[in-house]
Amino acid sequence: MEKPLILVTNDDGINAPGIRCLIDIMSEIGEVIVVAPDSPQSGTGHAITINSTLHCSKVTPKTSDRLEYSCSGTPADCVKLAVNELMPRKPDLCVSGINHGSNSSINVIYSGTMSAAIEAGIEGIPAIGFSILDYRWNANFLNSRKFIKKITLNALKNKMPKGVVLNVNIPAIKESEIKGIKICRQAKAYWVEEFDKRKNPLGQEYYWLTGKFVDKDKGEDTDEWALNNGFISIVPVEFDLTAHFAIKDLNEWDFK
Amino acid sequence: MEKPLILVTNDDGINAPGIRCLIDIMSEIGEVIVVAPDSPQSGTGHAITINSTLHCSKVTPKTSDRLEYSCSGTPADCVKLAVNELMPRKPDLCVSGINHGSNSSINVIYSGTMSAAIEAGIEGIPAIGFSILDYRWNANFLNSRKFIKKITLNALKNKMPKGVVLNVNIPAIKESEIKGIKICRQAKAYWVEEFDKRKNPLGQEYYWLTGKFVDKDKGEDTDEWALNNGFISIVPVEFDLTAHFAIKDLNEWDFK
Repeated sequence: MEKPLILVTNDDGINAPGIRCLIDIMSEIGEVIVVAPDSPQSGTGHAITINSTLHCSKVTPKTSDRLEYSCSGTPADCVKLAVNELMPRKPDLCVSGINHGSNSSINVIYSGTMSAAIEAGIEGIPAIGFSILDYRWNANFLNSRKFIKKITLNALKNKMPKGVVLNVNIPAIKESEIKGIKICRQAKAYWVEEFDKRKNPLGQEYYWLTGKFVDKDKGEDTDEWALNNGFISIVPVEFDLTAHFAIKDLNEWDFK
Repeated sequence: MEKPLILVTNDDGINAPGIRCLIDIMSEIGEVIVVAPDSPQSGTGHAITINSTLHCSKVTPKTSDRLEYSCSGTPADCVKLAVNELMPRKPDLCVSGINHGSNSSINVIYSGTMSAAIEAGIEGIPAIGFSILDYRWNANFLNSRKFIKKITLNALKNKMPKGVVLNVNIPAIKESEIKGIKICRQAKAYWVEEFDKRKNPLGQEYYWLTGKFVDKDKGEDTDEWALNNGFISIVPVEFDLTAHFAIKDLNEWDFK
């Protein structure tokens, strides 16, 4: 079998330790092309660059003949540019991450990592976003290597369900403590925001967004439950946002 | 009954004609507070500002005592700041728009207008995004006034289905030609990207993202069908992205 062609991207920027680890793992599986943002893009959501230009430089390291591109855009821009302009053919898989920090539960909505995976999904490419629950630059990614490889090989072998991408989160615990992999639903959790109000040297007010993550979802089938209990969580994520269950109710509203 | 408190925001910026029209309509219905970006944010998706500061100025016009705030952040930032810092109480409704340009089908994913509505939904506030299929600054919003009022009054009177916000798109035709309002699902359409490659004055390459919208969805229950046939479309949108139908399939993957 021909080696699969794998697009690797992320939202922490092309030099983040997380993507370097993911590139290593993917290089054991297939032919890798990297197209990633030139700077950190956390919290960028599914932003795309439509009112400005995109710059892109080949940055292949001297020690390798792997193609790597550093791009001025968002993670979703990187995928669009990779698939439509930079890659010799449509990739067999797109992986994004490993994100420094959780993208479980409602965080999927704000996640640049997942927006890259979702963008690939929209373009019909099987896609997975990987995140580890450790925000630090020097997070330990080694605990997750064998699990990431296993999930990726499964995604290549089995057919990805149609209209679905995978959101994988990994607890920041020792490899020997990881109990396994669980397929989950997104926990119904949310952020309670607090704004830290300050004054700049000119006396003008400004804010820093901070917040507290609140999970009141009691289900044992959620990603939060899995992660809190030593499992790696996989949530199948869809990009058809239609709330089909609500259509009947809305048809009873009075628009006369 | 006390007048409902309505938060108005958008992604085209606080001075866009679309939001000025929406403010007018909402002022006939309730007490309005405006918190909107200080500059255009189209295509910003669900970005939030986590690595930078937010600035916010009171810009209430001299001719009115309505509270208006211009904010340096994204549409989602505006909603977070409004609800947690600027408003006297949790609003009864959040409306976003009227967007200059369509947010139907897959465009909901890239839409700053809809990300504001979704952010409000996450915070438990009934929310609606309004968009008109005309990208021009001087788009004619008058055709949609009575429909927007009707939809808003329904959303205040009926209970919004739980975990759902509304994505309303309005065709750019005369009011007399609008056939009515249809509850729809998101059409399975997508963009085929093309990158316009150019050279800057220093000889370095850069790109402009362009693309063609492709709708191969034959359903007559989609937003695209409704809009192409003279109807206003309402898609109920959910922010639990779990693809519940895929969980069974994924449980058959081999993670041993």
